[in-house]
Amino acid sequence: MSDTRLNKQIEFIFEVDKLKKIYRQSIITDGSREENDAEHSWHLALMAIVLHEYANDKNIDLLKVLKMVIIHDIVEIDAGDTFIYDKRGNETKGQREKLAAERIFGLLPQEQYLEFKHLWEEFEARETPEAKFAAVLDRLEPLLLNAKTGGHTWKKFNITSDQVLQRNSHTKQGSKKLWDYIEKLIRECINKGYLEK
Amino acid sequence: MSDTRLNKQIEFIFEVDKLKKIYRQSIITDGSREENDAEHSWHLALMAIVLHEYANDKNIDLLKVLKMVIIHDIVEIDAGDTFIYDKRGNETKGQREKLAAERIFGLLPQEQYLEFKHLWEEFEARETPEAKFAAVLDRLEPLLLNAKTGGHTWKKFNITSDQVLQRNSHTKQGSKKLWDYIEKLIRECINKGYLEK
Repeated sequence: MSDTRLNKQIEFIFEVDKLKKIYRQSIITDGSREENDAEHSWHLALMAIVLHEYANDKNIDLLKVLKMVIIHDIVEIDAGDTFIYDKRGNETKGQREKLAAERIFGLLPQEQYLEFKHLWEEFEARETPEAKFAAVLDRLEPLLLNAKTGGHTWKKFNITSDQVLQRNSHTKQGSKKLWDYIEKLIRECINKGYLEK
Repeated sequence: MSDTRLNKQIEFIFEVDKLKKIYRQSIITDGSREENDAEHSWHLALMAIVLHEYANDKNIDLLKVLKMVIIHDIVEIDAGDTFIYDKRGNETKGQREKLAAERIFGLLPQEQYLEFKHLWEEFEARETPEAKFAAVLDRLEPLLLNAKTGGHTWKKFNITSDQVLQRNSHTKQGSKKLWDYIEKLIRECINKGYLEK
């Protein structure tokens, strides 16, 4: 436990402060400004604690889900936020984020670098119960913000309900219960005129 | 698992979005603006994952620490952020925050209301290993922000190193290693002219 080790960890902690300046398309519920990635990650963590009972897999490891959602957007410090409906941006997203993971997680001591990299890769691959459930939260949160702000992002980019349903249907793999809720929410948003049919 | 239960949970998730508008005295590392409570809570969660090896108690429950730091400032939605060196504000802080905990955690289903209330009370009492370690993080993070921004908050309020040492000395109860680091950091900040001796 040398000071070199602690110094590396503190350098990483300083570096990730930049996530507070990566702004997303979603706006916060009072409509005053865009949400940043640090706030978004905190909101997902809280949602994981409150909603994990709805995961399809009843033996889900909540600690792992929390670690995943807390670190899942750190790569955006270098790669930027890629809007989910941005086709061109999403073609290069993988490569840009991979380089970012190497650089930023690479600030940590070796075994923590590996732990963070593997957690992030697991989140991205969306194959394990924890990754599938984390993905539900990552989709549900911006839907809730849209529902509360009159469909702000949907209207801004002329997104239709078909697109929203298509980009969110994978959530049923993580939580059937929350996918049912999402479908209901989307119908309500169409009825209120927040989202084009 | 009725919809009433899920609706209560979603109401709570909407309500806590307001934490993104509770601003603290610390400014983020690029010096551009004050940090808010949601970002701060996310940063503590990340620090818990990276630094928990330094807790005095080697059997610390990381999941509990994460839950604590994620919810620890939610009461400030109603009670506001009370600056650590604000004497008068700290006299009424306890009562204001207690009422806030009742109202906000009270939005949740009964057993989650109790879980969150107990976690928050445990954090505040600073008696268990998890609460003591969470308190270290809650003090270390603003110290790091001050060290990176030329002592912004200390200078703004004419805080001296004696005050900083006094308000942070409890961190040795959670982590001797991180208290040593904090002492060293404070000395460095004095030498750099960020903090009055």
